[in-house]
Amino acid sequence: MPSDPLPSWNDGASKRAILDFVAAVTTEGGPSFVAPADRVAVFDNDGTLWTEQPMYAQAFFIADQVRRLAPRHPEWATEQPFAALLSGDRAALAGTGEAGLGHLVAAAHAGMTTDEFDAQAAAWLATATNPRTGHRFTESVYQPQLELLALLRVNGFRIFVVSGGGIDLMRLFTEEVYGVPTDRVVGSSGKVAYALENGVPTLTKLPELGSLDDKAGKPENIRLHIGKRPILAFGNSDGDQAMLEFTTIGHAPSLGLIVHHDDAAREVAYDRDSAIGKLDTALDAAPGYGWVVVSMKDDWNRVFPFAD
Amino acid sequence: MPSDPLPSWNDGASKRAILDFVAAVTTEGGPSFVAPADRVAVFDNDGTLWTEQPMYAQAFFIADQVRRLAPRHPEWATEQPFAALLSGDRAALAGTGEAGLGHLVAAAHAGMTTDEFDAQAAAWLATATNPRTGHRFTESVYQPQLELLALLRVNGFRIFVVSGGGIDLMRLFTEEVYGVPTDRVVGSSGKVAYALENGVPTLTKLPELGSLDDKAGKPENIRLHIGKRPILAFGNSDGDQAMLEFTTIGHAPSLGLIVHHDDAAREVAYDRDSAIGKLDTALDAAPGYGWVVVSMKDDWNRVFPFAD
Repeated sequence: MPSDPLPSWNDGASKRAILDFVAAVTTEGGPSFVAPADRVAVFDNDGTLWTEQPMYAQAFFIADQVRRLAPRHPEWATEQPFAALLSGDRAALAGTGEAGLGHLVAAAHAGMTTDEFDAQAAAWLATATNPRTGHRFTESVYQPQLELLALLRVNGFRIFVVSGGGIDLMRLFTEEVYGVPTDRVVGSSGKVAYALENGVPTLTKLPELGSLDDKAGKPENIRLHIGKRPILAFGNSDGDQAMLEFTTIGHAPSLGLIVHHDDAAREVAYDRDSAIGKLDTALDAAPGYGWVVVSMKDDWNRVFPFAD
Repeated sequence: MPSDPLPSWNDGASKRAILDFVAAVTTEGGPSFVAPADRVAVFDNDGTLWTEQPMYAQAFFIADQVRRLAPRHPEWATEQPFAALLSGDRAALAGTGEAGLGHLVAAAHAGMTTDEFDAQAAAWLATATNPRTGHRFTESVYQPQLELLALLRVNGFRIFVVSGGGIDLMRLFTEEVYGVPTDRVVGSSGKVAYALENGVPTLTKLPELGSLDDKAGKPENIRLHIGKRPILAFGNSDGDQAMLEFTTIGHAPSLGLIVHHDDAAREVAYDRDSAIGKLDTALDAAPGYGWVVVSMKDDWNRVFPFAD
């Protein structure tokens, strides 16, 4: 028997569903075989591949950017989500959801070139730590999911991150941390404008939102960026429900999965009433569509790569 | 000596520039080595990978769609580019350029689901022929470029098509014809809206233009879809100039190339005064930036895969 490709997953229905699905779609001549070109897997990021507690990593990052720009934007003192961020009101900030985050991303970086953004964000990622885990954000990823990404990759899947987080920040670490290259990252984005400035090709970030990659925006962006329906989708919140529908309904073979954050001891237990990563309608829909609800508490024997 | 990887390219400065560049960026330990993850090559489609004469292939395709929808749009009788298309005025239609084409793409398909579009477009591609070559549009591609794509691929390049043509139509043939999967196709696009309609996940094409992938739109979309500066760009018109700048200026090692359509015998000779694929400012800029101007007449001993 070969060694277990998913050692951080406990034996049980969730692990079995994954292993059975991968075996089925890769068995040539079998009834569920899928050609490698169509083995597209999409993963949400916040709450699915890395922790979104105590707050989206992107929110910590843009707090510094917004504070720097605030003197030029007096209206932010009363306008959400800026006011919540500037006053340190985490509950109000969380209440603006991934939509609020998308607007912050677009607004807070306007006027900066993409090179300036990339340099600042890379420096932040190299040093900032998640206040709850005490580890870098890029280390506060889920070990069982790293194993799943590796399993899918050796089985010929092309893996895409499709997340409400900002596309630019994610691209600075997805290749190193998840093995996902920049062109396989889909996220919320602000528009950019190209010009040859003093002979230098320059992309400047505009205050205009390009796309909010959440809810219906996920299948819409999958069409734009990938151009194929995935056969596997993994999410953790109602923001992923449309992507799960698009992947699985009337589209066999396929597999939909949801991380259920039910582990108060090793992370945070949250679902229907949470401002961050609210999981309510998708949890209700899961049984009817056959989506696998993965219990962090019961299905994962390890949560993070560091000891926990 | 290994067999020639570019048999349809005549020996000369253009072929030498390509072979030298590929050798330089793949020589480990050499001064111009580029890691495989950064070997990104971008190709325009119309006039660069396949012929855009006597008219963009997409224009032939959407003519049928526009005629079908015209009764619902009386304003099209006087509004360009619709009027030119409906009246069969090819010169006027060509005069609206790739921008006009982008607007036609967005407008003519509104209200259709993506599944409906894909089925209609695939049926069209399977049967329609280019009136000048007498062969299918998907056969009216440039043999020397197919060889170049293969050479780049075996040398670890990721190849993207970045074209003013509609992203949806291109994706239906790029995998089979160019070996370029759907997620590596960037093009002009209309917006789509996702909804679960009667329990069926549905993407509906909207009349709103999402992005016009021409001129400055090319580096802007490269940022959005690829997230990295390419190291090789190949175009044929002023619409590719911004992409060539973005790829090459202050970004070594890199290679910019332009197909110069100077072969009246085997294709059509056109450049500065052409409504289709106008090549004027980019031709003037080429020497200063070191872009390689590829003469169809002198550099290619064969143009199409079929006898010509």
